[in-house]
Amino acid sequence: MTVALLSIGDELLRGEIPNTNAQWLGEELTTLGCEILTVETVGDDVDRIVRAIQRLRDEHEVIIVTGGLGPTTDDRTAEAVAKAFDRDLVRFDEAHEAIARYLKERDRDLLPGHEKQALLPTRAEMLSNPCGSAPGFVLGRPASERPDGSPVSIESLGVEVYVLPGVPREMKAMFDRHIRGALACASSHDHYDAVVHTFGVGESWVANQLEGFEEEHPNVTLGFRARDGQVSIRVSVRAKAGEGDGRHMVQSAASTVRSRLGRAVFGEGDQTMQLLAGKVCRARGWRLAVAESCTGGLIAEQLTSQPASDFFVGGAVAYANTTKTKLLGVSEDTLRGHGAVSAEVAAEMAEGARRAFECEVAISVTGIAGPSGATSDKPLGLVHWAIASPDGTICEHRVFNGDRNQIQRQAATAALDLLRRTLTGPRPSRPARHSRP
Amino acid sequence: MTVALLSIGDELLRGEIPNTNAQWLGEELTTLGCEILTVETVGDDVDRIVRAIQRLRDEHEVIIVTGGLGPTTDDRTAEAVAKAFDRDLVRFDEAHEAIARYLKERDRDLLPGHEKQALLPTRAEMLSNPCGSAPGFVLGRPASERPDGSPVSIESLGVEVYVLPGVPREMKAMFDRHIRGALACASSHDHYDAVVHTFGVGESWVANQLEGFEEEHPNVTLGFRARDGQVSIRVSVRAKAGEGDGRHMVQSAASTVRSRLGRAVFGEGDQTMQLLAGKVCRARGWRLAVAESCTGGLIAEQLTSQPASDFFVGGAVAYANTTKTKLLGVSEDTLRGHGAVSAEVAAEMAEGARRAFECEVAISVTGIAGPSGATSDKPLGLVHWAIASPDGTICEHRVFNGDRNQIQRQAATAALDLLRRTLTGPRPSRPARHSRP
Repeated sequence: MTVALLSIGDELLRGEIPNTNAQWLGEELTTLGCEILTVETVGDDVDRIVRAIQRLRDEHEVIIVTGGLGPTTDDRTAEAVAKAFDRDLVRFDEAHEAIARYLKERDRDLLPGHEKQALLPTRAEMLSNPCGSAPGFVLGRPASERPDGSPVSIESLGVEVYVLPGVPREMKAMFDRHIRGALACASSHDHYDAVVHTFGVGESWVANQLEGFEEEHPNVTLGFRARDGQVSIRVSVRAKAGEGDGRHMVQSAASTVRSRLGRAVFGEGDQTMQLLAGKVCRARGWRLAVAESCTGGLIAEQLTSQPASDFFVGGAVAYANTTKTKLLGVSEDTLRGHGAVSAEVAAEMAEGARRAFECEVAISVTGIAGPSGATSDKPLGLVHWAIASPDGTICEHRVFNGDRNQIQRQAATAALDLLRRTLTGPRPSRPARHSRP
Repeated sequence: MTVALLSIGDELLRGEIPNTNAQWLGEELTTLGCEILTVETVGDDVDRIVRAIQRLRDEHEVIIVTGGLGPTTDDRTAEAVAKAFDRDLVRFDEAHEAIARYLKERDRDLLPGHEKQALLPTRAEMLSNPCGSAPGFVLGRPASERPDGSPVSIESLGVEVYVLPGVPREMKAMFDRHIRGALACASSHDHYDAVVHTFGVGESWVANQLEGFEEEHPNVTLGFRARDGQVSIRVSVRAKAGEGDGRHMVQSAASTVRSRLGRAVFGEGDQTMQLLAGKVCRARGWRLAVAESCTGGLIAEQLTSQPASDFFVGGAVAYANTTKTKLLGVSEDTLRGHGAVSAEVAAEMAEGARRAFECEVAISVTGIAGPSGATSDKPLGLVHWAIASPDGTICEHRVFNGDRNQIQRQAATAALDLLRRTLTGPRPSRPARHSRP
């Protein structure tokens, strides 16, 4: 099944927003075994949209169009799709009712722009939108491939054109509801992949460890992605549906990748450092608190981006020195003697957070995220982090490269990685001496 | 000057990495006054690259190709560009020397893949790469438009095709060195824009308020973007270079947009809610603390994504109820009587944060971000937030739509918006009564 993605919007051409829809659809469609041949973006211009669709339909079996279905005057996708297939735009009562219902449930008024959203090309099939007012539609989908198996006959155009809103949340919900099942059934290829995550090593080290891998595994391709101090390796296998055991092949290849990368590997697939932090705390039955200075709440935010109340007690963003002393009990002598960015202060912050939040384990971070704050002996990017637990306190530090946000993100990941390593490593037979310098 | 961007790479089609190059180039080119008509991505496939270039050259004055210049076998962009213009690939001594020098400086060996990188289309002009081994090239640039004014004659193809590596750092450095100046000189249009940000109103309300605006201002186009409860309106003017005062035109149009949207407007341009929060605190000379439950550190993280130590004291992520009582002094009676998600608890959290952090103003958030936690009288998305200051305590609440992260983001923005409105509004003559329910 060959697919083209067509994104509509002047704001995409001008780079005002990233095209996250194309990336998300690319990943999802690849997993379904579809082959994406073209990803194209054009502006909110009827003639350009028409020309793009008329060209793409000759080279692809499916076109997924996103964007330009909103209520404003610059949203002209429905009009353009109708024109590309010589259709008229007509009012769909079904669409009008869905829009009116959506607005009523939210106590919002039906405005002229919403009337426009109920206009769809003749002989289209409306696709309902569970998360917004704009309905989508599909042209040319044979009834036999519709997931609900309903007998409404839709003429075959030789191409299926799905049209979805550009708001990512709405687009994703509608893809899941209306498209995923149909394309999964129709796909002639299966795609399997596995992603292995490493932390603390460079991309070239990873590439070097995996040299010759693709020659030894001719059905497997590797992709690399570096971000926030992590390097992730995607192991992909694409096999004709029903031929060979792709799942086994990809698992075996991923296992070889893991063993070649050794201790740098921290997780696979959807596992993020913050999910693993929750996992290791739950496994020990330990509750966690955080004390953040230069990361400013980022670690707490990452931990609570998923439900976390079963292990995460809370955190202190100790930005000012007075907060470090008052809330966390860091001693003024330590602050004066070693400075706020020091292993000593990191240790006292973690130990203070354990006391303040009355929990088993706490992590702390203090550093210089910049742009200012560096001194001759404490460079920009210097970060100290610590973990305090019944087994003692461990401190680590490093100088990270990058801008303020990159330093903050790497520091957050490094602190969570120390938590993961500490809680999964061998436990000392008695409480360790503090490993403070 | 009409431009097409052509990105090459299977990893982009499959969504393994975001196409940050297209976004960056889109922004830069727009600022230069260029008009980007098409952004396209195709895979590492010679025939598809050839067809894309042959099609794009008829509709655009400039094509910028990125990606596929690496040393590995799947990098075939130079070969495809040569084929699209009926050229041969030949060894450029200049390119070979640059590659050898780059590697020597880094103690790396010249490998067979690097030899391939010295092959460029006949009659191309090499573009040096200050950050990597792969040189780029340009076809069809008339010598008169070359920034160094060198007399090497390059034939006119009717289109200029720039080919750059896909590594963002290399691509950006080469764009700056070789392309920016030439396109700025050649551009016949200037581009001006202004962005107006609103919060708390829907996209269709905004559209309704601005109905007829574009008809009344024929040189102005409006673009809309909705995110995290904010709707941003981009006001753009594209004027022929030297004709009319585009800067004045866009400022006057933006001012009309602001007045039509009234109190929903909170900022312009680069102003974010968190930057404005810092601005209003600094203006009053007030120090700020935050007490977060369902936002889990997000507000603190947003405030500290920019340097903030001159107004931001710190924050408490009070996830567990014990943290709310112990750290912030929320009374157990209030928690029992009203529940953690209530105006009463939000008020006590904000007041407690003022005390704990010893500062003038504090904001608090407590809510149900989901996916679980909703009850019959407290729906998913219900969030209470409060601000405590010397002027009293103000509480607000709302039920937000969306998934966990969307609810968290909208709640964070709403709390910062209350801070902004409170600190810029008229001050009461004496401390206000608490506006608690």
